[in-house]
Amino acid sequence: MKLLVTHIARIAGIETECRARLCGAQMGRLNCLDDAWLLADAGRIAAFGPMPVPAEIEADRTVDARGGMLFPSFCDSHTHLVYAGSREREFLDKIAGLSYEQIARRGGGILNSADLLHRTSEQQLYDEAMVRVREIAAKGTGCVEIKSGYGLTTEDELKMLRVIRRIRETAPLAVKATFLGAHAVGRAYVGRQEAYVDLVCREMVPAVAAEGLADFIDVFCDEGFFTVAQTARILEAGARYGLVPKIHANELAVSGGVQAGVAHGALSVDHLERSGAAEIEALCGTRTMPVLLPGAAFFLGMSYPPAREMIRAGLGVALASDYNPGSSPSGDMRMVVALASIRMRMTPAEAIHAATLNGAYAMGLSDDYGSITVGKVANFFLTEPMPSIEFLFYAYTTPLIRRVFLRGEEMVG
Amino acid sequence: MKLLVTHIARIAGIETECRARLCGAQMGRLNCLDDAWLLADAGRIAAFGPMPVPAEIEADRTVDARGGMLFPSFCDSHTHLVYAGSREREFLDKIAGLSYEQIARRGGGILNSADLLHRTSEQQLYDEAMVRVREIAAKGTGCVEIKSGYGLTTEDELKMLRVIRRIRETAPLAVKATFLGAHAVGRAYVGRQEAYVDLVCREMVPAVAAEGLADFIDVFCDEGFFTVAQTARILEAGARYGLVPKIHANELAVSGGVQAGVAHGALSVDHLERSGAAEIEALCGTRTMPVLLPGAAFFLGMSYPPAREMIRAGLGVALASDYNPGSSPSGDMRMVVALASIRMRMTPAEAIHAATLNGAYAMGLSDDYGSITVGKVANFFLTEPMPSIEFLFYAYTTPLIRRVFLRGEEMVG
Repeated sequence: MKLLVTHIARIAGIETECRARLCGAQMGRLNCLDDAWLLADAGRIAAFGPMPVPAEIEADRTVDARGGMLFPSFCDSHTHLVYAGSREREFLDKIAGLSYEQIARRGGGILNSADLLHRTSEQQLYDEAMVRVREIAAKGTGCVEIKSGYGLTTEDELKMLRVIRRIRETAPLAVKATFLGAHAVGRAYVGRQEAYVDLVCREMVPAVAAEGLADFIDVFCDEGFFTVAQTARILEAGARYGLVPKIHANELAVSGGVQAGVAHGALSVDHLERSGAAEIEALCGTRTMPVLLPGAAFFLGMSYPPAREMIRAGLGVALASDYNPGSSPSGDMRMVVALASIRMRMTPAEAIHAATLNGAYAMGLSDDYGSITVGKVANFFLTEPMPSIEFLFYAYTTPLIRRVFLRGEEMVG
Repeated sequence: MKLLVTHIARIAGIETECRARLCGAQMGRLNCLDDAWLLADAGRIAAFGPMPVPAEIEADRTVDARGGMLFPSFCDSHTHLVYAGSREREFLDKIAGLSYEQIARRGGGILNSADLLHRTSEQQLYDEAMVRVREIAAKGTGCVEIKSGYGLTTEDELKMLRVIRRIRETAPLAVKATFLGAHAVGRAYVGRQEAYVDLVCREMVPAVAAEGLADFIDVFCDEGFFTVAQTARILEAGARYGLVPKIHANELAVSGGVQAGVAHGALSVDHLERSGAAEIEALCGTRTMPVLLPGAAFFLGMSYPPAREMIRAGLGVALASDYNPGSSPSGDMRMVVALASIRMRMTPAEAIHAATLNGAYAMGLSDDYGSITVGKVANFFLTEPMPSIEFLFYAYTTPLIRRVFLRGEEMVG
């Protein structure tokens, strides 16, 4: 199946050098081609160039972009989008001024989601999650990482990961699965944190690995959750089964989680709202990508992570949605990029790279996704005609994403 | 034309007492009816009640809400949605850290918009504005106030107001027009502020009134814009022609604009990011509605106005979008309500009232709009099935507004 897109006002996010990620000042330069066409063949980008379309190009289907722009699909490397129910009652608690910790202590938060998930069938979980998957696909996301972590028993963690596997098998997006048994201490183990860590290491990790259910292993290494020492134990248990680490770190406190992640060769360390020079220094020169989640900072009213300082220090930065029922009930990556621009002073070019190529890197997918590059998977979206690239994030609530293509085929709402 | 809507999971925003506005604790109680039907006749709400539909009710058209909720349309009492071009280049200046005042001094801001508007035909202005009007209608807005203020010459202010008149005549929304000649000092008068105020009072106001182009008169009473004394002169000039005041106040500094508005019987004072006990005290017991614009505070990274303190003091509060190309490039009232809940700690009930009935009050329209009340205009929207009212603002980027009805007729995208 050959798909030809013509009359594209501007292709944004072209990468010809096949870099796995963009760091520091590289992030600020967005490669574009104006008045262009693009050809996809068998689900991959086959060629692109300036109009007119060369006479030798033939296609099974031609789409006229009508002066809209073409962007690579978003690569959202941090979500918890498999969950049961929603938690807007806690939203009211937050409005009333209760803290994350207070809500957790009232039996809300992650344990509340775990109780609900336990009572929900795999089919129901899949059906509810697929509504969210279709929603984010329509909003321009083409790759997504999904975490377990609302199970917190071996059985329920496996249930979540099987739901994620089924999503990967049925959704048109590329899906990566992360085992996050150490999202919180399961209800049966409250007050016996070390015993829960034992359960994660000795029972959950082997069971997850036996079914090949996860690509990554994650730990919530933060105040009130898991310590650096516990994190190290869990990551070492995962490493024995080839699970690559990704860490939740420094959301609630300067936790040492960034350094723990780097020490264990984490592909990413995520959140980082409470980060300073020490965390930036720990990341420099490593393979570990800081993944920033402005949707969570926005929804919880926290300070935003120091993106500008990271980029100035030469780091690459990724942006992700953190789509989850408690702290970020949105998977809209365009809103994430807008938040990064409006509230974190990332330029639109930096934010686009952070939400595409660097997001793909944080999922180990940047060889195949995250930019407009010949040979990569043909995941992209077309916009309404716009005066500039920046307009997509400046006019942050205007419906501008018009048509979405995944693996070279159009998604129909 | 009789329209019957059946199987509504919940009607929200019912008002039976026909109050012109809701103040203080009244704002926190949202009247609802579950499992309901609603009948519109000749564009007005004729009746509603619990399912099943009484046998005697007949309709020309029946719509099955399929378990979605019904809300009164948003009433957006503060916009500048007639403008030429967009200003996302200044968005980059803001990301680079320049202040509102610095951007204005660089020739950006309002004067930039005025230059562009001067070069743009009335037809082009109308066409561009109608794109925005259709966009906000699809997002649930049923009444909108639109200001002039990017003309800043008599001729161009009249041009803008004629565009607004044409929108009022052609759009399905209720439209109110505000003359805002004193949005900034026109370029030809820079350094001669008093002479510009003379122009506004002696030439613009009579010309606007002669054509009957405005319902309200507005002044940007703030640091670097117009003083309290100049504001008083302009409002008095307007009063001679029956123009009711609405004031931009306390966005940039404690300007005295709130007190000036109250002294002149303003229907509303808008912005109020820099407000404290003195401003709240000045508003208590008056007819003047404080109108808060969280979209502008969000986009500019300013502190939010003190909504909780106002409500605690017994004031009514309205929410509006401030849709404009510089400081709030969004007219999405659902996002405004979400911002009010997430960032200003207004409860969803308070925020809904602020964005509906109290918004209608701030346009002098609450007799006919702003709530589900028999006899009011049948402006409402239906949502997807949702677990709660709060979900609409908690899941703030999920597409949940499914069908929009204005004057009892369905808007088709």
